[in-house]
Amino acid sequence: MSQWTTVAEEVAAKLREDAAERDRANAAPEREVELLRSSGLLTAFIPAELGGGDADPATSDSVTRIIAAADASIGHLLGYHYLHVWRSELFGDQDRVTRLRRETSANQWFWGGVANPLDAALELTPAEDGFLVNGRKTFATGASLADRLVVSGTRTDTGEKLTFTMDARANGVRYLDDWDNVGQRLTESGGVLFTDAPVAADDVLGVHPPSEEDSPAALRLSLAQIAFQAVLSQLHVGIAEGALEQAAEYTRTMSRPWFLSGVDNASDDLYVLVGYGELVASTEAAGLLADHASALLYAAAAEPELTPELRAAAALTISSAKVVSTKAVNEVTAKIFEFVGARATASKYGFDRFWRNARTITLHDPVSYKARELGAHLLTGELPPITGYS
Amino acid sequence: MSQWTTVAEEVAAKLREDAAERDRANAAPEREVELLRSSGLLTAFIPAELGGGDADPATSDSVTRIIAAADASIGHLLGYHYLHVWRSELFGDQDRVTRLRRETSANQWFWGGVANPLDAALELTPAEDGFLVNGRKTFATGASLADRLVVSGTRTDTGEKLTFTMDARANGVRYLDDWDNVGQRLTESGGVLFTDAPVAADDVLGVHPPSEEDSPAALRLSLAQIAFQAVLSQLHVGIAEGALEQAAEYTRTMSRPWFLSGVDNASDDLYVLVGYGELVASTEAAGLLADHASALLYAAAAEPELTPELRAAAALTISSAKVVSTKAVNEVTAKIFEFVGARATASKYGFDRFWRNARTITLHDPVSYKARELGAHLLTGELPPITGYS
Amino acid sequence: MSQWTTVAEEVAAKLREDAAERDRANAAPEREVELLRSSGLLTAFIPAELGGGDADPATSDSVTRIIAAADASIGHLLGYHYLHVWRSELFGDQDRVTRLRRETSANQWFWGGVANPLDAALELTPAEDGFLVNGRKTFATGASLADRLVVSGTRTDTGEKLTFTMDARANGVRYLDDWDNVGQRLTESGGVLFTDAPVAADDVLGVHPPSEEDSPAALRLSLAQIAFQAVLSQLHVGIAEGALEQAAEYTRTMSRPWFLSGVDNASDDLYVLVGYGELVASTEAAGLLADHASALLYAAAAEPELTPELRAAAALTISSAKVVSTKAVNEVTAKIFEFVGARATASKYGFDRFWRNARTITLHDPVSYKARELGAHLLTGELPPITGYS
Amino acid sequence: MSQWTTVAEEVAAKLREDAAERDRANAAPEREVELLRSSGLLTAFIPAELGGGDADPATSDSVTRIIAAADASIGHLLGYHYLHVWRSELFGDQDRVTRLRRETSANQWFWGGVANPLDAALELTPAEDGFLVNGRKTFATGASLADRLVVSGTRTDTGEKLTFTMDARANGVRYLDDWDNVGQRLTESGGVLFTDAPVAADDVLGVHPPSEEDSPAALRLSLAQIAFQAVLSQLHVGIAEGALEQAAEYTRTMSRPWFLSGVDNASDDLYVLVGYGELVASTEAAGLLADHASALLYAAAAEPELTPELRAAAALTISSAKVVSTKAVNEVTAKIFEFVGARATASKYGFDRFWRNARTITLHDPVSYKARELGAHLLTGELPPITGYS
Repeated sequence: MSQWTTVAEEVAAKLREDAAERDRANAAPEREVELLRSSGLLTAFIPAELGGGDADPATSDSVTRIIAAADASIGHLLGYHYLHVWRSELFGDQDRVTRLRRETSANQWFWGGVANPLDAALELTPAEDGFLVNGRKTFATGASLADRLVVSGTRTDTGEKLTFTMDARANGVRYLDDWDNVGQRLTESGGVLFTDAPVAADDVLGVHPPSEEDSPAALRLSLAQIAFQAVLSQLHVGIAEGALEQAAEYTRTMSRPWFLSGVDNASDDLYVLVGYGELVASTEAAGLLADHASALLYAAAAEPELTPELRAAAALTISSAKVVSTKAVNEVTAKIFEFVGARATASKYGFDRFWRNARTITLHDPVSYKARELGAHLLTGELPPITGYS
Repeated sequence: MSQWTTVAEEVAAKLREDAAERDRANAAPEREVELLRSSGLLTAFIPAELGGGDADPATSDSVTRIIAAADASIGHLLGYHYLHVWRSELFGDQDRVTRLRRETSANQWFWGGVANPLDAALELTPAEDGFLVNGRKTFATGASLADRLVVSGTRTDTGEKLTFTMDARANGVRYLDDWDNVGQRLTESGGVLFTDAPVAADDVLGVHPPSEEDSPAALRLSLAQIAFQAVLSQLHVGIAEGALEQAAEYTRTMSRPWFLSGVDNASDDLYVLVGYGELVASTEAAGLLADHASALLYAAAAEPELTPELRAAAALTISSAKVVSTKAVNEVTAKIFEFVGARATASKYGFDRFWRNARTITLHDPVSYKARELGAHLLTGELPPITGYS
Repeated sequence: MSQWTTVAEEVAAKLREDAAERDRANAAPEREVELLRSSGLLTAFIPAELGGGDADPATSDSVTRIIAAADASIGHLLGYHYLHVWRSELFGDQDRVTRLRRETSANQWFWGGVANPLDAALELTPAEDGFLVNGRKTFATGASLADRLVVSGTRTDTGEKLTFTMDARANGVRYLDDWDNVGQRLTESGGVLFTDAPVAADDVLGVHPPSEEDSPAALRLSLAQIAFQAVLSQLHVGIAEGALEQAAEYTRTMSRPWFLSGVDNASDDLYVLVGYGELVASTEAAGLLADHASALLYAAAAEPELTPELRAAAALTISSAKVVSTKAVNEVTAKIFEFVGARATASKYGFDRFWRNARTITLHDPVSYKARELGAHLLTGELPPITGYS
Repeated sequence: MSQWTTVAEEVAAKLREDAAERDRANAAPEREVELLRSSGLLTAFIPAELGGGDADPATSDSVTRIIAAADASIGHLLGYHYLHVWRSELFGDQDRVTRLRRETSANQWFWGGVANPLDAALELTPAEDGFLVNGRKTFATGASLADRLVVSGTRTDTGEKLTFTMDARANGVRYLDDWDNVGQRLTESGGVLFTDAPVAADDVLGVHPPSEEDSPAALRLSLAQIAFQAVLSQLHVGIAEGALEQAAEYTRTMSRPWFLSGVDNASDDLYVLVGYGELVASTEAAGLLADHASALLYAAAAEPELTPELRAAAALTISSAKVVSTKAVNEVTAKIFEFVGARATASKYGFDRFWRNARTITLHDPVSYKARELGAHLLTGELPPITGYS
């Protein structure tokens, strides 16, 4: 793993250099995706025999977090990319998994997804050798930059819900370029409009069973939803780590001690030291919990006899990680300002982007409903519902 | 007072319309200052016989807060303007006070200040009929937009520290236009360079006694420092009020209830209701405390036999107001996002500006040192030191 | 007012001496009520011509708070006593008010109440010249120590809800002596059993109109409920003030600086100073808000044309005060331990009683529902419902 | 491990039955120590060949936490007992370790310690075949209940600092029975007076090198101090877990929904569910971090080439665990009251003991100095100092 950690750190160092500037410019991160591609990180977790970097997939979270610490948007794109590649496993067709990984390696594909559960479903009309997709989706992170998409839709004839892959540049796919938000600005999370966009029958990953079904196969498919939540927690932690690191660098090298402090360096002010220490501790706790949550997720995915209880155990810990990391990243990214001081509010330092990124990404879905799941389980043993967000 | 409250609300309504857009554009707020001028607000608190609006000066905080709720930068400019006009009283020369007010009314002057205590002092070299000013100052809020300035400097010959007024457009005054910060973007708080800029002897407001002197006159002069702190607390409260109001408007009209909430409107979600309620309560408490602090300040300024204890009582309550309002505004402006939801992170709504303004203005000077004053007074009875910030 | 403040401080000083010890002993505070009585505080706010101390009733909160700071239970008893005496005004029969005050002064009555709205109503069976009371009530703070009671019940024949006074020692009134709780231990807030207890027709204060009626008279009667909430906020603030004062005394005289602190006295540790300062500020804010809330309540009670909006304005500010004071007192009473240190956990100092009192009294009714009122008003303009708690 | 977990849970169930009652009675926990002894838990982590229960020592924290959840004082005694048995390893004399474990198993010894670093050192005067101990120590948790003690003192002749074991019932050892504190009441953490108490030369575990020495052996010895900190974090987590579990049981079975809630059970109130969920999440994070910290400690103890950096890595994570667990346990034990409601403040339920235990144990040494270590390391790379507490 250490090889790819090193690569990630090199990429992160490049991203960090102009992250504040690129945040302001708000241009589509084409060069940044190219940087990920040329570094090999896109395929780092694909086995060597399929053309990839052969790293242990379970450690992809570390790479995501390193990149997110430097540039939260790019970390977000990469974390979702890994998730899209990984989730093909959940459908249980090993041949297809192998083929997709081989093609991803060969073409150095960057993956995006189109699946906001709160929008109306895309319509899949059967057509010669596949389907035609119609409809509109919002919040399609990374899609407009992607080579391949993972998409969900509903068959107009049978009502079945399918997940499939498609060429992101196919005819009939239009990116609305309407993502201009206060945080995660470079994630290109805008809308997508499908107009008779063709999907090959062979690219259908699988059919989703009803959410109340609890066969191991059905439960396994439903892991994709909590996998997104797990990645979000990792991104929260990455942002907190990046904010702490860069704020500490500023305090160490740029901050002036307050004239009443009686110390020669801002780094010697007790209030500053204690304040940073509390943030270090909460970030470390959130990171450990996010990693533990991911480990439970991977274990559930690998469990042939997956039960509702095992799925729920992973889901609940992922919810804990979300609650804890949400609190940590919002607190860290706001509090660091007290330790860098007034001059560090100059736009050129871009310290506000950490908070804007944190505040935006932590609203992906309301964290209070994750806490509610945890409370309900404690009080009544209730398992979290299986939804588009849990 | 109600007349001027109404005017303030009309001006605020205009400012609110494009506040988010102007924040992004980051242009010098010349039209906004003109709006204040044409509304009569600049001279609202000057007595009628001197040409002003005749409102009770003690109620200027309400106007400041109403404007700050709509546009924190413009509220900041206005609050400091009122402070500059008011503080001339502290020097005890009633004729000059009268003259300054009359001129301010006649010319509809907008005032700014140049006095960052952490910079090296400006140098005042005696010259024919006055002084020449040389040196450089940072964080000169509003100066580049002002007609008249209040400035502090040190005589090169005697070492005396003087406060004086001058024409903001005088020869030898150059505005560095270097304010590009993440919050309070339109306050034009950049640097000023003085090169042999002339000051008339007649425009010297007074000489500052050493800070350890505790005659009533010396103590009265030292009220200017805590007056800035009092205005800052009012601005904190105004920002919190504005954020709450606009977030509530969005929740009421735009937010969707979460699909698991079981309610039809976001405004019926218990978590949202309780959350807003907590913010309302803390904002109300901060507002009352800020008003109480201002009242103690005005009472101290009006007290012929001002004592160190009376000054300290005002200073300590102002510090309490700063501690409480800092916490409230940072919390309110961050927390509202949970109640408006993910779609409200679109840049066009500009909800992040409340937090950026709050986070920037609350760093004016470290709030921990205000808390320290309060703790020291509780523990040992120590009075707050008289400094550039307290 | 200053005379009675002095008396209150003298009584408080006596109570403070053995407050920790008496908290542990948990004996009914008969001597403490006697101390209040002999000090004159019980009748301090009754006009001189009716035999009382002639203090301004609107300032009774200060006395309550001073006593509560020394002994939260005794402050609670006194605050409720004042409330019981005051609330007779709400029924609009000035002759009765005069008579009750005259009798209270003449007999130095201590008042208690029996009215938990969540219990089944007491039954009032018409009898010769009055009623017989039957039923059981819980949480009857101070009743078992009282001379006179204010009680509510429902007529068995007409279903009308009456409030009346009665001799606390009447036949058929039994105190269950079942108050053994972790905080507010000396408030004697146990149950009361009524078995054919006689009430004179002449002691009926009035009939309660349905809660939806909004005549000024009906609204005025409903102020009693929010008056309890206002007193609770004052008690919260009193407890916080007492905790701060006694902790500061300990830190100043007994605490040792930590061996790594580099200072000679615990009172010089920056972390301790800042920590205390933050608590001072939040207590001051809560106190101001509680006083403002009380002032609105008294103004509403004095308003001949009381409207739902005016009542709501008082109710909402009282709810704000409850939210803010609840948070402040729970935080202050927990946090002080960090500033007194490990040795101060010895039982003899009794510092935990502040927190136990705070934690118990702040559960009187769920503060989240007060926040909900505030949120609903902000979002939709909804006025708080008129209930037994609002 | 599962066998001993089961035993621990059985013991915990017994302790839980009357934990509240025993807390009030405040009697020395002789029967409770006997219960630990008869259950086999005292020797569970000693290898089978030495007569113990053969559980993996690294998992002793789980047992400590299970017991602490039921009764924080008894968990504290057990956690320290395990620590005293374990720490003999640090001195590097494997024969002695073997002998101590064998004897502990054979005699079912319960171990206590006497070593408060802030007191004056005990004096060790050389005597025939050993030393005589003189002096006085405070905060000697468990000592008065112990069979054997681990004690530290300083040789009067050479100034060397020794750690040794001794018979807790030896002549000249007097327990001052002066522990009467608001929390951790049954830990018997009172003072000990030594008057010519004999120590055998053979019972000296080792000599402490100066704290600045950084040989692997010296660093290993210094792990004892951070091991105490690690156990404290585990106890914090155990208390939080116990509080949550028992509060949830009460909410589920006893709490009434608020009359305005619109739900039939307190367990369905959104505010209650979200509130519990947040506490579950923070407790889970603290638990993971405490376990990770313990794992780093055990790894450091097992490392032949222990370096200052490896020791520091363990120390820093232990500090993080302390910061996070301190915050979690104080918050959990205070907040649960909002979810059980006013009736749960009855003394018979004893819910306040969780908070009193938490508040007391978290003051063992000031957590702000742990945060300071973390901040200093982040800012400057400084390693935590080696002291009696770190």
